Amino acid sequence: MSGPDFNKTPLIPVIAQDFESGDVLMLAYMNQEAFHETLNTGRVCYFSRSRNKLWRKGEESGNVQQLKEIFYDCDADALLVKIHQVGGAACHEGYRSCFFRKLSPDGQTQVIGERVFDPATVYKK
Amino acid sequence: MSGPDFNKTPLIPVIAQDFESGDVLMLAYMNQEAFHETLNTGRVCYFSRSRNKLWRKGEESGNVQQLKEIFYDCDADALLVKIHQVGGAACHEGYRSCFFRKLSPDGQTQVIGERVFDPATVYKK
Repeated sequence: MSGPDFNKTPLIPVIAQDFESGDVLMLAYMNQEAFHETLNTGRVCYFSRSRNKLWRKGEESGNVQQLKEIFYDCDADALLVKIHQVGGAACHEGYRSCFFRKLSPDGQTQVIGERVFDPATVYKK
Repeated sequence: MSGPDFNKTPLIPVIAQDFESGDVLMLAYMNQEAFHETLNTGRVCYFSRSRNKLWRKGEESGNVQQLKEIFYDCDADALLVKIHQVGGAACHEGYRSCFFRKLSPDGQTQVIGERVFDPATVYKK
C-alpha cells in the first residue's frame, strides 16, 4: 500500500494548515491508528507524545479540526493535513496558530497574532 | 534566551512554507548549529538525519532557500520558516513541494503538481 510508512517512522510529524487561509496552524504527530481514525472519521486525530495516547484534537476545547485534504511527502515520513479549524484557534494558548512567535536574526522574539480565546476559560481545571 | 529549545529536542522539525504562495514545501530538521547558521546567513540550513551532518539546502541543486521569516511554536519544539525557494522546486524529486501526493479516504494516492525539474539532470551522478 502507498502512503506514509509507519514501519519506518512509527510517529510521523503532521503539519496542519488552514484550508481557507493557507496559514500553518500547528505541528503534531500521528501513529498508524491516529492516521486511520483521521481518514475514517474526517476529524483529525493525533497521537499525544506527552500523554502517550490518541489525541482527538478539540475533545476538550471543542476546537476540532475537520479534514479537507491530506498529503504525504516524498520520503513517506511526513504528513500535511489541510483542515477547517472549528473555533478559529488551533493553539492551546488561545492563538489561531501555534507559531505566534517570530524570531528576528538577533534572536529577539516578537509575539504576532492575537488570542482568539482565553485558555483559562476554555480549559476549566 | 527565548526561542526553540534544543536541550529538550536536539533535532527540531522545521516546516518550510513558500513566502509568496503560502504553499507548504517540505518538512526537515534543524539542530542548534543549523538554526544559528540559518539566522546568521539568511539561507536555510537543515540537519540531515540520513547523512548525519549539516545540510545546506540547495548546495548540490542550486535550489537554495532564502529565509524571509522564522517562527517557533508554543512548545518551543517546532519551527516554521517562510522562504523564497530559488529554482521553484523544494523537492529532490523535482516537484515544487514534497507533499505532491494526495490521499483519498480509501487510501488511494493521486499525484498532484508537476515536476519543475528532472532530478536526473540536476543531480548528476
